[in-house]
Amino acid sequence: MNYSTIVLMTDFGLADVYVGQMKGVIDKINPNVKVIDLTHDVQPFNVRQAGFILKNSYKYFCQGTIFICVVDPEVGSGRESICIETEDYLFLAPNNGLLTYLLDELRINQIIKIDNLKYNANEVSNTFHGRDVFAVAGGYLSKGIKLEEIGSSFDISLVKKSESLMVRKFANKVVGEIVYSDRFGNIVTSIHRKDLPKEYEKLEIRINEFELQKICKTFSDVKVGELLAYIGSMEYLEIAVREGRASDLFRVETSIKLIWE
Amino acid sequence: MNYSTIVLMTDFGLADVYVGQMKGVIDKINPNVKVIDLTHDVQPFNVRQAGFILKNSYKYFCQGTIFICVVDPEVGSGRESICIETEDYLFLAPNNGLLTYLLDELRINQIIKIDNLKYNANEVSNTFHGRDVFAVAGGYLSKGIKLEEIGSSFDISLVKKSESLMVRKFANKVVGEIVYSDRFGNIVTSIHRKDLPKEYEKLEIRINEFELQKICKTFSDVKVGELLAYIGSMEYLEIAVREGRASDLFRVETSIKLIWE
Amino acid sequence: MNYSTIVLMTDFGLADVYVGQMKGVIDKINPNVKVIDLTHDVQPFNVRQAGFILKNSYKYFCQGTIFICVVDPEVGSGRESICIETEDYLFLAPNNGLLTYLLDELRINQIIKIDNLKYNANEVSNTFHGRDVFAVAGGYLSKGIKLEEIGSSFDISLVKKSESLMVRKFANKVVGEIVYSDRFGNIVTSIHRKDLPKEYEKLEIRINEFELQKICKTFSDVKVGELLAYIGSMEYLEIAVREGRASDLFRVETSIKLIWE
Repeated sequence: MNYSTIVLMTDFGLADVYVGQMKGVIDKINPNVKVIDLTHDVQPFNVRQAGFILKNSYKYFCQGTIFICVVDPEVGSGRESICIETEDYLFLAPNNGLLTYLLDELRINQIIKIDNLKYNANEVSNTFHGRDVFAVAGGYLSKGIKLEEIGSSFDISLVKKSESLMVRKFANKVVGEIVYSDRFGNIVTSIHRKDLPKEYEKLEIRINEFELQKICKTFSDVKVGELLAYIGSMEYLEIAVREGRASDLFRVETSIKLIWE
Repeated sequence: MNYSTIVLMTDFGLADVYVGQMKGVIDKINPNVKVIDLTHDVQPFNVRQAGFILKNSYKYFCQGTIFICVVDPEVGSGRESICIETEDYLFLAPNNGLLTYLLDELRINQIIKIDNLKYNANEVSNTFHGRDVFAVAGGYLSKGIKLEEIGSSFDISLVKKSESLMVRKFANKVVGEIVYSDRFGNIVTSIHRKDLPKEYEKLEIRINEFELQKICKTFSDVKVGELLAYIGSMEYLEIAVREGRASDLFRVETSIKLIWE
Repeated sequence: MNYSTIVLMTDFGLADVYVGQMKGVIDKINPNVKVIDLTHDVQPFNVRQAGFILKNSYKYFCQGTIFICVVDPEVGSGRESICIETEDYLFLAPNNGLLTYLLDELRINQIIKIDNLKYNANEVSNTFHGRDVFAVAGGYLSKGIKLEEIGSSFDISLVKKSESLMVRKFANKVVGEIVYSDRFGNIVTSIHRKDLPKEYEKLEIRINEFELQKICKTFSDVKVGELLAYIGSMEYLEIAVREGRASDLFRVETSIKLIWE
């Protein structure tokens, strides 16, 4: 496989120099690889959100993309740094559950623990493995260094799991959780389109205490300021206020009940 | 024309995965095109601000740049997706007024409606045409696919217009509006340098209720903490407090009156 | 030297079009140079923070990198625009102290004042030299234009100095300052690892009024919510609350006293 693109996803933000330094390290090792930011604003330490985002984004990238995913509250402790090879991609991340949701849907070729110090920075800091471990390993992998040289084999049973996204189906309702809300205040839930009954577009529904006419197609199906539910661009149920902020109406720990007649 | 650069301008922010997914889609179609972010922090749904920014920025980019501009409150409704070809550039945007201010100053070669489904994503979401329509079409255009293949001819009379920027000239004053304020709290007004009297640098002026000595050249013409008016880097009148925030002194809906003796 | 990468560091933020326009200008002059953002969120006008960040980041970038550093409160006044050539890099910045901390550790080959108008924008605004002076000069330098063509020789004695980072060493303590706090609320101090006593990891310490057991290796050495001090990824003493915000506990002007028995 020819790896020509590296995608970065972290909770480092863009205000500090962390992401810039990672890009410098990669450029130093392989000036020919392209680097794309998926996002650096995962909620700090929110490993599950990172996993959800990754699961719903990787397919938009070309075959031969290396994903470097760093949301890493236990950096510098004993937790392993791992790399999962699938048919089309490489995924590098701390072994903390971040890659769980991928395992459910991708065929795994090989998993390694990144432990060959030759492919670490000369001095590895205790608090920034994004730069000193992952960017270095990713850079070398993009240059064609083999996975087996970067580290040793790692058994899939040792890959840490995040808690599953909560979805419970009942006769006339589905209950899910809020995964996160986006820049517009739109709420992304754990309820997938496939969790809804067939012909869901014809149902009259309620979301928690709010009566809604139906599941809409898009924002402009309601008036400015009105609440709507719709299937978002990642195929999960989302809740929005047209040109407003639905996130002001729901506490993040609230469970979302979609009820129909 | 050889299209080698794609510029993105949206109101999607960088905190979410929207922009990252668009870049993935483009990379998948044409790994050789360069992608530059103009900004992703247009005020949400503010089509006029996007138009103003674009009109004052496109000329800094090289011939053969494709601009993908997505501020799109009516996404998924009937509104068309259009592409305007000028002598040097392509501009893709929803047909909602975003491209109005360009029409005033650029010679248009051709306008199309992006309606050839072959150059859309396989499945087009209802809420994210930035990824499923515009990034795909832009990617193919950068690969050399002809405009006529992407969509059908679209009459210029059907291109939606945004309200003009308000500027009124009087004997001893000009009245304009606040277009937006920037990261520093500096206020960008709709009053262009050309709207001012000749030798404007010699005038004693007032801005609304504030007495100012004159229109300054730059921030350091006044003391730290003092208010100043100056011609900004886009050639519009701007108002700042040196190392402070002018945006705290004016409500965004206030009209700006520049008065001289 | 072949200059293949330009690194940008500014206080312009990413919300406005300033950085996008700079990238357009560079792309127009040299479409083959790679541009990497170090950060654009230096605290507005904080020249010392920019200098500190640069000093601790440049080494992560490859030989032949051009750094364009614009934190420029006196833009448009008489202050010079300079370029410092070292063995491996070029550094462009306003002559306002931003490059001070580099001078202490890099061997300088040559310094010029960027004053050849041929390598400025055709029209130079008074308030945006990032675009009209630095991006243009950097673009041409990356194309192989010689330093001597960009401007005239500038004596090192004329390079403005920022105030040194405050560090005072005593028998049983070191006193430093807060340089800035990062996205996570972690505090970066001016106290370098080398300012600490040997075997500092065995000391019992206090930070101001807070009793700490010792200088930790990493966040997970303490419980969630607990305060810790550690040597950060730039080798300076940092203070954090695990998965919390240390910056809420210290006012930014506070001096940091690290005291041991």
